[in-house]
Amino acid sequence: MSELVWKSATDLRRMMAAKEVSPVEVVRACLDRIGALDGTLHAFITVCADAALDAAKAAETRLVSGETAGRLDGIPIGLKDLCDTGGVKTTGGSKILADRVPAADATLVRRLKDAGAIMIGKLNMHEFAYGPQGLNAHYGTTWNPWDAETHRIPGGSSSGTGAAVAAALCAGGTGSDTGGSIRIPASLCGITGLKPTYGRVSRAGVLPLSWTMDHVGPMARTAADCALMLGAMAGYDPADATTSVLPVPDYTVALTGEVKGLRVGLLRAGFVGAAAPEVASAVERAAKTLESLGAKVDEVALEHLDVVPAASFAIVAAEALAYHSRWLRTRADDYQPDVRERLRLSVLVTGEDYVRAQQVRAWVRDAVDEALRHRDVLLAPSTPIVAPRVDEADVDIRGRRSDVRSALIRFTRPFNLSGHPACALPCGFTDSGLPIGMQIAGRPFDEATVLRAADAYQQATDWHTRRPPVG
Amino acid sequence: MSELVWKSATDLRRMMAAKEVSPVEVVRACLDRIGALDGTLHAFITVCADAALDAAKAAETRLVSGETAGRLDGIPIGLKDLCDTGGVKTTGGSKILADRVPAADATLVRRLKDAGAIMIGKLNMHEFAYGPQGLNAHYGTTWNPWDAETHRIPGGSSSGTGAAVAAALCAGGTGSDTGGSIRIPASLCGITGLKPTYGRVSRAGVLPLSWTMDHVGPMARTAADCALMLGAMAGYDPADATTSVLPVPDYTVALTGEVKGLRVGLLRAGFVGAAAPEVASAVERAAKTLESLGAKVDEVALEHLDVVPAASFAIVAAEALAYHSRWLRTRADDYQPDVRERLRLSVLVTGEDYVRAQQVRAWVRDAVDEALRHRDVLLAPSTPIVAPRVDEADVDIRGRRSDVRSALIRFTRPFNLSGHPACALPCGFTDSGLPIGMQIAGRPFDEATVLRAADAYQQATDWHTRRPPVG
Repeated sequence: MSELVWKSATDLRRMMAAKEVSPVEVVRACLDRIGALDGTLHAFITVCADAALDAAKAAETRLVSGETAGRLDGIPIGLKDLCDTGGVKTTGGSKILADRVPAADATLVRRLKDAGAIMIGKLNMHEFAYGPQGLNAHYGTTWNPWDAETHRIPGGSSSGTGAAVAAALCAGGTGSDTGGSIRIPASLCGITGLKPTYGRVSRAGVLPLSWTMDHVGPMARTAADCALMLGAMAGYDPADATTSVLPVPDYTVALTGEVKGLRVGLLRAGFVGAAAPEVASAVERAAKTLESLGAKVDEVALEHLDVVPAASFAIVAAEALAYHSRWLRTRADDYQPDVRERLRLSVLVTGEDYVRAQQVRAWVRDAVDEALRHRDVLLAPSTPIVAPRVDEADVDIRGRRSDVRSALIRFTRPFNLSGHPACALPCGFTDSGLPIGMQIAGRPFDEATVLRAADAYQQATDWHTRRPPVG
Repeated sequence: MSELVWKSATDLRRMMAAKEVSPVEVVRACLDRIGALDGTLHAFITVCADAALDAAKAAETRLVSGETAGRLDGIPIGLKDLCDTGGVKTTGGSKILADRVPAADATLVRRLKDAGAIMIGKLNMHEFAYGPQGLNAHYGTTWNPWDAETHRIPGGSSSGTGAAVAAALCAGGTGSDTGGSIRIPASLCGITGLKPTYGRVSRAGVLPLSWTMDHVGPMARTAADCALMLGAMAGYDPADATTSVLPVPDYTVALTGEVKGLRVGLLRAGFVGAAAPEVASAVERAAKTLESLGAKVDEVALEHLDVVPAASFAIVAAEALAYHSRWLRTRADDYQPDVRERLRLSVLVTGEDYVRAQQVRAWVRDAVDEALRHRDVLLAPSTPIVAPRVDEADVDIRGRRSDVRSALIRFTRPFNLSGHPACALPCGFTDSGLPIGMQIAGRPFDEATVLRAADAYQQATDWHTRRPPVG
């Protein structure tokens, strides 16, 4: 198969500009690879082969005449199937919306297309994004490309994006992250994913799970590619009142490879110290790597972590129910069992619970702000474990048993409550060959520094260049 | 009795600066008047005579030596008894907190004192601010100075502030406004009261009713005095994360008396058209007055008014319960009956209801923004009726029966949901001699324009100078 599929978006753009490669070749290579592998991986719900090739030809024409649509011109991407695409089915991974064809693109989709990105298909996901395992009863469960044979999960809910990008079915894709749904699959699949600051990327035209916790962001194989995509996606949108009017910088300019003097707070208590030993060592090693590049690493602890699970549950449950109650009454049987069960539990959340949860949330946000008062970024594992097998219900971490679901979202959820940006990226592999992920969190709307740190780390290491044993 | 009590804070400051009057004389005059009238009015829960006189002497000393603490130096004010005062009982109008003595001042109280204001006492209120009638079972119900004999209500919950300022027991005071609790007593007592933009004035140290609906603001006899007080109270406070970092202008500078070209949207549908005929005529006449001063008045309607009552109820109920459930379980008998009943109803609000209410709220905010897109301010009555007698449970407005409580909050509550600033001020009197109030609402954080319009109207009219038949 073509080596082209393994090129980063950044490299592809350079090669296209130098006319070393055509968008048509790149898109064909991706479509061929999808044809060869997706019967096993189940990363896509819909593949738009013809439309993608047409768009690639248009990009090629522009290229030949020296024009360009924008910074993503000719780059093949996939979209999580909760991002509305005009004229193309958008199911949210559900049976209930199986035939739903939106009239228009979501704002972020339109922006990606305006920047020239070529949409090659819609990516699989946990039904309605409600679950970190990424299982899907209706469109097949996506498997982790690092171990599709023993059926390890790719993490979710953006499972399709995690698997597709890791297996090089496309250069990048979109994810949404309510409790970790971008960072968990990035961690388990060994790719890079950014949950931007709350309010940085418009959610107009994106199916909601929890309107005060949902974040949409880019997933790709490198931080540089995430920077490229975020620059296209981000910014104020009158159709989404929660978006910020703060200007969007050119994130790629921030990627200097330099972290000299960068103040990094290493989260040990509750994070590194609560992760499986192989994960903990990899993150400690990454901290040393950053230190060797000139960063100043110290240890820091987040207060109020104990309230995160209950507050997150109450908020997501009540907000999810506000959206789903219409169908829960009339089409309960059309939900997959775990999602139905979770929605039914939601009716137990009272208005009082919800209000308290939002109040407690302010403590968590303040705690993260406090940890960042004298630091530029925070460093922690993305998940306490690497990709589990689908039949593992419980995991044992340093003698503490926990269900897989709770374990997977433990380190990511604090930053959904707090709204701070956080980037997950690979920082090592277990002896059994599974990727280990770390996350770098930063100040509100300072994605530039988060991405600079992640990119500098990737310039100095090669974990992100490893290829899964698939295809 | 001394004429001094009728002077505005603005006039008093001028007279003090010219050494025509001493802060001690002013404070003594207020204390004398409280002694003479408050046995009937019940506007105060606590009077701080000695501390006020000490503070007045200190202000006098400063004055003599040509110093000044700030723009409110020597001005006697009262504080609604839900604003924490260090060392002085702060009851929230409740039996439950009857013996509560805070260690420190609320931020806004500290700021008023830093500006030189003299706190002469703590003002009566509807228990825990939960009700627009202002009734209070524990500290006596405050009576409306315009008709204390037939026991008309002053409106609430800031009933003590409304009555005290109207009866000239103090020059100004603070109120809090969750559904209209500043503007309703201002309307029924014939004074001026400003609900600032949500986030303009710190609520740290203020007993909460509903944290996303509560606003604290000034009440006084003129818009100019409200401007003086707001300038001292407003601004970012690290202790209240909902405060805005936007700078606080000198509002008094904005009071040019000029409204030439000011674009005024007159709210007829659902406001003027839903008010008692005498109220409607007075507001229409006020619109004509503004027009004669050079303002451009047109008619405008607010969309989504129909959702305001249910959304407001769900939000206030759930948020009030989150604060009160601690006592509702253990001290239910210590609440006055109407408040207990309202809190008990709150348990019916589910998390789903609350979330929907907050979502619907965004429509209301957008509707107000839309009405203000090509206008500077909106004009409406403050309340559809004038002060009712305490024994009136229902009112008839243009053939539509309604309970008094619902009627009183009908026109004010939309701006609690939307967060826009709104100033209530007198615009006429009924044939029976009761004050009629109108409100001027403006753009977020544009209190300057709202106050400029209110002040220009007061410079051209004399409704605000009428004195109630008390004392």
